[in-house]
Amino acid sequence: MLAPLYIALLHHPVLNKHGAIVTTSITNFDLHDLARTSRTYGVKKSFIVTPSLAQQGMAQYIKKYWRQGYGSEYNSDRCEAFEDLEITSDLGETRLTIQETHGSPPALIATSAKTHHQSISCQELRQVLDGSTRPALLLFGTGWGIAPSVIAEVDYVLAPVKGTTSYNHLPVRAAVAIILDRLLGG
Amino acid sequence: MLAPLYIALLHHPVLNKHGAIVTTSITNFDLHDLARTSRTYGVKKSFIVTPSLAQQGMAQYIKKYWRQGYGSEYNSDRCEAFEDLEITSDLGETRLTIQETHGSPPALIATSAKTHHQSISCQELRQVLDGSTRPALLLFGTGWGIAPSVIAEVDYVLAPVKGTTSYNHLPVRAAVAIILDRLLGG
Repeated sequence: MLAPLYIALLHHPVLNKHGAIVTTSITNFDLHDLARTSRTYGVKKSFIVTPSLAQQGMAQYIKKYWRQGYGSEYNSDRCEAFEDLEITSDLGETRLTIQETHGSPPALIATSAKTHHQSISCQELRQVLDGSTRPALLLFGTGWGIAPSVIAEVDYVLAPVKGTTSYNHLPVRAAVAIILDRLLGG
Repeated sequence: MLAPLYIALLHHPVLNKHGAIVTTSITNFDLHDLARTSRTYGVKKSFIVTPSLAQQGMAQYIKKYWRQGYGSEYNSDRCEAFEDLEITSDLGETRLTIQETHGSPPALIATSAKTHHQSISCQELRQVLDGSTRPALLLFGTGWGIAPSVIAEVDYVLAPVKGTTSYNHLPVRAAVAIILDRLLGG
């Protein structure tokens, strides 16, 4: 039995291509893909994290369309996937939401396209989560990755997903899928 | 050494939700995600397959933007990924394109969210490809999946990617990522 797993997609604080801290825009496809992939692998909730009220509103609008609007009639599988998608304003609120459910704050695991000195593999993380009852929150970044201030706070950093080439620019949607499959899959 | 691997995303002939044969529209994010994930895992080429001339033109326009337009200056990683993305009109043209490079037509492997009687696992497919010089073409469907007429023609059908729940509606972008990781990853 693995610890209850949550994921969060951070739109702030993240880096842009010049290394500056920015807030990225929400991508509609990220909402769908995270919701569907998370549902497939039994992730408890996926959080879309942005401090922008306008962007939160857009994400809520998209969720509502698939949960209650025409989308829910047109595609009930999509309706089901969106059930576990939540929108939060920052990492603190996300942690509190999980803590309210489980009584303890989640272990924080950052993902990154770079290797950090404390990086652990998916296999090592699976061992950490195996048999633990403490919830765990996997953090994914948008833009050019999660800001160093967040990386400095986490309990673990997951080693980058390496393919078979030197090309190191997976879409975050693909990284989520591969990491969940490596952590939870058959 | 694995056989040279290609992937194709079919927009025709595929099923719609009522089981009818249709041509689906191209999704911009599929082009980006397939290009980037394929480049990460050393896939030789990704083919976007549609008989619609207007849709082919749109896909060519997107490719040209990232290969030669402002996109190539703005994001050279994206430019690199799009190098191996090709647009073809049908499966026959796709097979011929691969045959011209390798001298023999590719083995055809369909992917599906359903189990077929001749389904094989990623591990079994990896054994088939290992040490083979015959190219292989992995087929992914859009809409509600690849038409039975194509499934009937292929050499192998890959077993569906199962997560840890009964929810069986992964985005095709996630299925491509997970299958390439299972076939080629560490």
